[in-house]
Amino acid sequence: MATGEPLAILAGGGELPGMVAAAAVAAGRPVLILAVAGEADPVDPKFRSERVSWGQIGRAVALMREHGATDVVLAGAIGRRPDYSKIRLDWMAVKSLPKLLSLVRGGDDQVLVGVIKFIESLGFRVIGPHEVARGLVAEPGSLTRREPSASDLADIEAASSAALAIGRLDAGQGAVSVAERVIAMEGLEGTDAMLKRVRDLRESGRLERDGRSGVIAKWSKPQQDLRVDMPTIGPRTVAAAADAGLAGIAIEAGRVMLVDRAATVRAADEAGLFIVARTLPPGRGM
Amino acid sequence: MATGEPLAILAGGGELPGMVAAAAVAAGRPVLILAVAGEADPVDPKFRSERVSWGQIGRAVALMREHGATDVVLAGAIGRRPDYSKIRLDWMAVKSLPKLLSLVRGGDDQVLVGVIKFIESLGFRVIGPHEVARGLVAEPGSLTRREPSASDLADIEAASSAALAIGRLDAGQGAVSVAERVIAMEGLEGTDAMLKRVRDLRESGRLERDGRSGVIAKWSKPQQDLRVDMPTIGPRTVAAAADAGLAGIAIEAGRVMLVDRAATVRAADEAGLFIVARTLPPGRGM
Repeated sequence: MATGEPLAILAGGGELPGMVAAAAVAAGRPVLILAVAGEADPVDPKFRSERVSWGQIGRAVALMREHGATDVVLAGAIGRRPDYSKIRLDWMAVKSLPKLLSLVRGGDDQVLVGVIKFIESLGFRVIGPHEVARGLVAEPGSLTRREPSASDLADIEAASSAALAIGRLDAGQGAVSVAERVIAMEGLEGTDAMLKRVRDLRESGRLERDGRSGVIAKWSKPQQDLRVDMPTIGPRTVAAAADAGLAGIAIEAGRVMLVDRAATVRAADEAGLFIVARTLPPGRGM
Repeated sequence: MATGEPLAILAGGGELPGMVAAAAVAAGRPVLILAVAGEADPVDPKFRSERVSWGQIGRAVALMREHGATDVVLAGAIGRRPDYSKIRLDWMAVKSLPKLLSLVRGGDDQVLVGVIKFIESLGFRVIGPHEVARGLVAEPGSLTRREPSASDLADIEAASSAALAIGRLDAGQGAVSVAERVIAMEGLEGTDAMLKRVRDLRESGRLERDGRSGVIAKWSKPQQDLRVDMPTIGPRTVAAAADAGLAGIAIEAGRVMLVDRAATVRAADEAGLFIVARTLPPGRGM
């Protein structure tokens, strides 16, 4: 029986909304998924769901209130920019228009912060997917059969320090260290493209290739709002790290999301990689 | 007449040894080029030169002493690892072998530091190419017709801060900022590959493309020994920055080398890019 606090999930694309819903139901929370038209994947019929369009703010709010939800999770990818010419505004959307337009003027980060503020101004509380589904993030420790060696630990430290430093610059979240030297840092190109670069450096002989060595570290930015924008790793990250000849993956405990944790850990075990979660890079204070 | 302090140039590949020799001669210093066999390009016959092989340490030292040189510049690229089986050691090289072997054990950086220490232990002083040829580095200010705009200045600051931060990590020397956001950082792949990545981000539409915008900054690492390892830009950097749609290039004054300065500035002027030299990123203390 679902007797916990009701939860609304505003769902974009991908598997995350379903994972959050399953975790919430398992924790006894009644779930309502608001699937954003044109973005959300089909919703498993075992969850209560409604389709909402951009512009149906009044309807979305009414549905959430009727469900008794105070907590809202924004989950999944919003890939397409809405086609503004096709948006039909309901009355509440019209009333909110000046506020909404002022939000859209900022950069992407500001828009998200603005959207959260707007939702909270309506009396809801926006929480992060990982606050509902604790399994989405890792506790400190090793997740895999393989454990880091002493030289891996040195690479974990170097890569984590670099990932933290570029995160402070708001420039990126990931870095790769091989033989205690930082050799790649992730910018706008993303984690997979950075790992492909490392693979190319191995193949061209500019980076040693004797067995698996080196670590990719992924850390959140200190200023990152984890409710709407979490760094993630998943089976694809494991495959790219293996292709790059790395020995393992280090993530920030509690603040980096494991997309499909079971499949991610299985892929790492099969490839012989480690995944470890850390709260702080060794040897560094906060 | 060459009446200044005699100078020896230990020459690897490329145009740099000739540039340093020309600058030294122009400053009245008698020059001896020791062209490393298998590495150095052919030397202009207007300079006094001798070919030396790996292993002819005694001969090289005798030639430098005979020339009356106390100052030595190590200039040019050492691309190929010597074929150790073919090295014939002279007596001094044999005597120095234990010391030399202990040098080769470290990483590339340590090897260079060790080589400098070894040369200095023989009574010479190793100086940087830019200490002989001041035109190889830039004074603070603009080198081009185009000057940075207000938004360019913001990108100069963001890219310079990032380049400095990753330099402190010993990870890289260059970074790109577009619209005040750091989007690419240079690791082992090098400056040209990073700029190609920015071009790809433009072409894929993941980065805005409306006219020239954004800046690449290149800074030395604080711990870098400029006598043997200077960051450089040249005409190729300008071409890659233009292809990446950037508005200009910011370099550290006095510590980043301009390979063929005239051609570099001409290429920037023709492409409509600026090149500015800075001693410190705006708004930051040392």
